[in-house]
Amino acid sequence: MDPGELTTFLLAFAVALLGAKLFGELAERIGQPAVLGELAVGVLLGPSLLGLVPLTAGILLVAEIGVLLLLFEVGLETDLEELLRVGAPALVVAVVGMVLPFAGGYLATRAAAFPALTAVFVGAALTATSIGITSRVLSEIGMLDTREGRIILGAAVADDILGLVVLAVVSQLVATGSVGVGTALRAAGLSFLFLLGALVIGLPLGRLLVRFVRGARVRGVLAAVAVAFALLAALGAQEAGSAAIVGAFAAGLVLARTDRRHDLQNALGPTVDVFAPIFFVSIGAQLDVRYLNPFDAANRPALLLALALVATGVLGKFAAGFSAWGKVRRSFIGAGMVPRGEVGLIFAQIGRQNGALPEPAFIAVVLAVFATTFVTPPLLKALKPAAS
Amino acid sequence: MDPGELTTFLLAFAVALLGAKLFGELAERIGQPAVLGELAVGVLLGPSLLGLVPLTAGILLVAEIGVLLLLFEVGLETDLEELLRVGAPALVVAVVGMVLPFAGGYLATRAAAFPALTAVFVGAALTATSIGITSRVLSEIGMLDTREGRIILGAAVADDILGLVVLAVVSQLVATGSVGVGTALRAAGLSFLFLLGALVIGLPLGRLLVRFVRGARVRGVLAAVAVAFALLAALGAQEAGSAAIVGAFAAGLVLARTDRRHDLQNALGPTVDVFAPIFFVSIGAQLDVRYLNPFDAANRPALLLALALVATGVLGKFAAGFSAWGKVRRSFIGAGMVPRGEVGLIFAQIGRQNGALPEPAFIAVVLAVFATTFVTPPLLKALKPAAS
Repeated sequence: MDPGELTTFLLAFAVALLGAKLFGELAERIGQPAVLGELAVGVLLGPSLLGLVPLTAGILLVAEIGVLLLLFEVGLETDLEELLRVGAPALVVAVVGMVLPFAGGYLATRAAAFPALTAVFVGAALTATSIGITSRVLSEIGMLDTREGRIILGAAVADDILGLVVLAVVSQLVATGSVGVGTALRAAGLSFLFLLGALVIGLPLGRLLVRFVRGARVRGVLAAVAVAFALLAALGAQEAGSAAIVGAFAAGLVLARTDRRHDLQNALGPTVDVFAPIFFVSIGAQLDVRYLNPFDAANRPALLLALALVATGVLGKFAAGFSAWGKVRRSFIGAGMVPRGEVGLIFAQIGRQNGALPEPAFIAVVLAVFATTFVTPPLLKALKPAAS
Repeated sequence: MDPGELTTFLLAFAVALLGAKLFGELAERIGQPAVLGELAVGVLLGPSLLGLVPLTAGILLVAEIGVLLLLFEVGLETDLEELLRVGAPALVVAVVGMVLPFAGGYLATRAAAFPALTAVFVGAALTATSIGITSRVLSEIGMLDTREGRIILGAAVADDILGLVVLAVVSQLVATGSVGVGTALRAAGLSFLFLLGALVIGLPLGRLLVRFVRGARVRGVLAAVAVAFALLAALGAQEAGSAAIVGAFAAGLVLARTDRRHDLQNALGPTVDVFAPIFFVSIGAQLDVRYLNPFDAANRPALLLALALVATGVLGKFAAGFSAWGKVRRSFIGAGMVPRGEVGLIFAQIGRQNGALPEPAFIAVVLAVFATTFVTPPLLKALKPAAS
């Protein structure tokens, strides 16, 4: 790496880490999850304000490593049997939570006189829940290991898979003007088959790996092999048409069922503490605050549409929570499905590139994604059921 | 990051990690330090053989993070007072260990009928010891916390600083045909001043940081703030004309003097285990094995020169060990100064770019750098003094 690039990277990494921990601490002191502070400091440090954390390839790579390690850790903390037990309600929550925001987003965009293709893309961008944000908040407020937490997590995973299928379908729609139902079904089938296959193959493989490294003499074999396992699972998930983070999560689920679960959690905790904040800071840094200025007339169409999208985006996911059953706090589940995070931003960027999203629609989607992301941590904290 | 790039990166990262641990384990089983296995598997997985670990920007970034964290950890394991106590012999070893290989490299290159400028660059490329390799082996064989280990470490740090000064001087010589003594002295002074300043400012700052994070509520503040501190020190060192790893080492030295030293070692150990191997694999991956084929007549001038450079490179550093004094095993110190590692490769690449090194001279330098690097782990292991 040439010295100039290294300088930029070292500074951005260090500043992002310090900012994340400082603002995370401030957020905690005012009773909010730390991740809210990390998102906020990202906006502050990002290119549109202080410019101390530019979104270079290096920072985005560290952010990617961070979110993969985070989902791996979340998987390690999740009980697979309990997760499968809530499979049915989670799937229903996921599907309802995609249909309602899609319909709402489509109607709002049509009402603002955009073409149907744009409205389809906007609706699609509102469908996917961010596992990263939601699992981080659940972990912070101690709700990962509850029935509500597992339904949210299961639904978010299903959502992420379905969301990428939706992306494939709408991208094809934009490119060719028609939708191949076969393509969509194949993509969906492939993703779910991967997850199933990863669990079926992964469970014995994980045990084998753990047994294999037991006799090793070199330092740090367990942590290194576990991370390699997570990276390969992430790769497999991506190649199967799903998201890399879903693979990392599956790897964690699998290794959680070995007798080294706690060793792995202890070993990898600090690594996650160092890398995951960069992901949340980088998400915040992608918000261009100039779009928020209502006094600039050019921003107003986008801001108005954004308001409608936020309303439909929050309410649609929130309502989905009420499709869950059993002895659960449904409002909490709904709140957990609200954040769109990185997945929504990916939709927005692709839509801008392929021409489906004209500038005001693009900005509206980005703003709606941020609003749903920022509103989630306090919402979940407020709706958290009393310890039962 | 686009999906194709992410795929390449995930695969290379995972394969490098698994390969490093597997070959590290094999190296241990045949009585060698694990790092030798990591270097060897790098050659095997690198672009010139299997091509499974391409040297992309992503892998090089992870390697850079790895070596910075490694040197930070080595600093945490090093006692500053003890290090300063061996300052005088370390400095003498460093200077002698630069003069002898420089002279030997110059003469060997001249004898092979290369121009004087090329000979100066070759000599210069043989001067700098790789802190990364040497400190990793010292740590593995339990010799970091000995008088020999500290002399090697101190000399390697001095060497790294002086080596970059030498690089600045010879680069200027190539570019302008003359050497500014003022420039050289200023560069050397600046580097040493930075190290001194880092320690003087760093010691109270480190204590302050540790006190500051004590009351924090968010998870992982200590590890994250310590890493940010190391990154900033690395940045400072680089800006002062020294190497980033020297700054990371200084940050470790400073934080080792706080009461959280052991917490930091425990927290960051697994992170180092995951990232540092990528550095050693990436060093191995930079060797193009085609140059090693003596049956290709085109390789022979380079191979012959390489043999001469290896001889002078090993003997020069080895002899430097005998300039140390006190009750130490001088042959062990000499062996610890032998590896050239990444610093030598940087010299070679710059020499090729600025025209000082014609192709055979470039190849000879690269081969000599690898030979000195590969010979060090077994050499140190063999010469290790019995526990006293």
